[in-house]
Amino acid sequence: MKTIVILGSTGSIGTNTLDIVDRFPLEFCVAGLTAGSNHELLESQIRRFKPRMVALSDPSAAARLRERCHDLPVEILAGQEGLAQVASATEADLVVSAIVGGAGLVPTLAAIRSKKHIALANKEPMVMAGKLMQDEARRHGVKIFPVDSEHSAIFQSLEGHRIEDVRRLILTASGGALWTLTKKELQDVTPEQALQHPNWKMGAKITIDSATLMNKGLEIVEARWLFDIPESRIDVIIHRESIIHSLVEYEDRSMIAQLGLPDMRTPISYAMRYPERLPLDLPSLDLTEIGTLTFCKPDHDRFPCLGLGYESLRIGGTMPAALNAANEVAVEAFLQGGIRFTDISDIIRSTMQAHTPSEVESIEAALEADRWAREKAGSLVHALPR
Amino acid sequence: MKTIVILGSTGSIGTNTLDIVDRFPLEFCVAGLTAGSNHELLESQIRRFKPRMVALSDPSAAARLRERCHDLPVEILAGQEGLAQVASATEADLVVSAIVGGAGLVPTLAAIRSKKHIALANKEPMVMAGKLMQDEARRHGVKIFPVDSEHSAIFQSLEGHRIEDVRRLILTASGGALWTLTKKELQDVTPEQALQHPNWKMGAKITIDSATLMNKGLEIVEARWLFDIPESRIDVIIHRESIIHSLVEYEDRSMIAQLGLPDMRTPISYAMRYPERLPLDLPSLDLTEIGTLTFCKPDHDRFPCLGLGYESLRIGGTMPAALNAANEVAVEAFLQGGIRFTDISDIIRSTMQAHTPSEVESIEAALEADRWAREKAGSLVHALPR
Repeated sequence: MKTIVILGSTGSIGTNTLDIVDRFPLEFCVAGLTAGSNHELLESQIRRFKPRMVALSDPSAAARLRERCHDLPVEILAGQEGLAQVASATEADLVVSAIVGGAGLVPTLAAIRSKKHIALANKEPMVMAGKLMQDEARRHGVKIFPVDSEHSAIFQSLEGHRIEDVRRLILTASGGALWTLTKKELQDVTPEQALQHPNWKMGAKITIDSATLMNKGLEIVEARWLFDIPESRIDVIIHRESIIHSLVEYEDRSMIAQLGLPDMRTPISYAMRYPERLPLDLPSLDLTEIGTLTFCKPDHDRFPCLGLGYESLRIGGTMPAALNAANEVAVEAFLQGGIRFTDISDIIRSTMQAHTPSEVESIEAALEADRWAREKAGSLVHALPR
Repeated sequence: MKTIVILGSTGSIGTNTLDIVDRFPLEFCVAGLTAGSNHELLESQIRRFKPRMVALSDPSAAARLRERCHDLPVEILAGQEGLAQVASATEADLVVSAIVGGAGLVPTLAAIRSKKHIALANKEPMVMAGKLMQDEARRHGVKIFPVDSEHSAIFQSLEGHRIEDVRRLILTASGGALWTLTKKELQDVTPEQALQHPNWKMGAKITIDSATLMNKGLEIVEARWLFDIPESRIDVIIHRESIIHSLVEYEDRSMIAQLGLPDMRTPISYAMRYPERLPLDLPSLDLTEIGTLTFCKPDHDRFPCLGLGYESLRIGGTMPAALNAANEVAVEAFLQGGIRFTDISDIIRSTMQAHTPSEVESIEAALEADRWAREKAGSLVHALPR
């Protein structure tokens, strides 16, 4: 039996992870859960999965939860320190890192330093401090299993083959909700339109990232560090149906790919039980029912965020952290109705142009770039005409 | 350096294998070559690759070759015994088995019994005596690497994953040259039409098998023994573009697939150099250039040979050997203009119905079924109205 901790248990990945625990109660037990402020859902998760400790980053939500759960044998912590404490829970074998955004960096690193293997759904730690994360993982003998469907696909397509024979990684992108719109139409897109993802049901932030293609920009940074492959050998293709989740090309021009219906439980369960696979009673992919799979090149003119992702990697150092922070600020502003869809890439580009990158020699350097870029992007948002 | 023998060096797989030897002269040397009667091509191969011994199954062709090559330090053998002798060449590490049809069974088995690893392009040995071949391979510590693009794809998609997690094997079929014709149109098809394969340039026999879908019928039998998976868990789907070469579905509903442009040098080189991959300077698959991949279900009404393949496996014993022999006779008769395209499946079905299957306890049992079915199918061919 594997003992797990979930960082971000009330989000989309978190609830899917608990669905798997639910289906395989003899395989997993839950030592700890953390969330942001959703104390209602966390409470019901506590009652169902009986973790020894939980944490909410919002202290007032933690206080309310304490009132509601005073009858239960659970330790309820709060704030960044509480999250890091749950991430380091002594008895845990595996920490599922599924916090949204840069907030996942510190607790994920805490888990690595406590020698927990990581199921990594939260891509931002790799984007902000990929090299550092990998160095720390190596130092502590920790394995990082990707949960993102694309990176899980690449991980699965590398298994059993020699990394030195790899020629290219090919990430597939659905193109998101707005792929068919013109440059002009993109200017007037509402958050509601951008949130209509064609294939995946996910949180708001990542769904907008999918619509801007920044999700793929972040994923190339993540792939660069997860698989130690330079960005010049990472390609992106648009594949609207999200059936081929990604591919690896080898030196003999053979490609290995992982396919499946879009359901996060498949990559989550693979990361949780690697190298074994759990018999998930999910619908089977029938390619003859799907009928057609299509592929085309990304359009950098309408969707400049992907190119910014590549650029941040080429510049290196703290630039990907700055890109990520600026993106978080811009997406939040867009969701709040404060800026236009097409402003998102402009704000990120301007933030990058203003950023003086330095080496990510410590977690503090990444966090400092993050802070700086949030401030810069925030001021750019406010400078825009309403 | 690996020392190889090629059984069937003048055919499509044989010449492609030598192309790889040519590209990687430091990786391979050729100890022996065999062919049927094409002594001209074999002579030029002898001069280029300098094997120590060769054999031609046609004794008069061997005699001519001896005249032409008396100046060369090469031993020239003839007949079945000559083939088996080359297949057992002392110094060989790997035997590429690429003889067309059932004629490959005896020399391939001879190679296994001489403890040579096998790169198996010739599917008939597995069809005629799959269990026996696998038992012999196990007994002699021999590895059988599939070369057929579909089986190589499955082999590559199984590498690094657990065989006990496999749910289904899914073989892709191009549908062959006649996929779009109606049942009525199929009756009047000429050999020339049936030989127009949409994607692969192959020998005549296998190209007709591709048009009847018997190629896939034989491949499910081969897959059943190569991977030890019952036929109820082997599916076939039509995929006209021949880009996804086959897939494996696992218990978690994840599928792993191997893809590539149709070029036999990729699976051949993988079998030759496993587990390493050779940097083949071939065009790279660009899915965005292909644009669309399509899939549909096989049509058992227009193409009954696939169903006959399944049926032969369900009946078991010598039935697949009988099916294979009847198919070879019927295809040859079709190529000679002796029967109609739609007669091929009728002849195979009638032969199967007349066959009393027995266990394949020895190679002789398989060969006896083969002999019996050839005679039976031959008489059925002759009984047809001209």
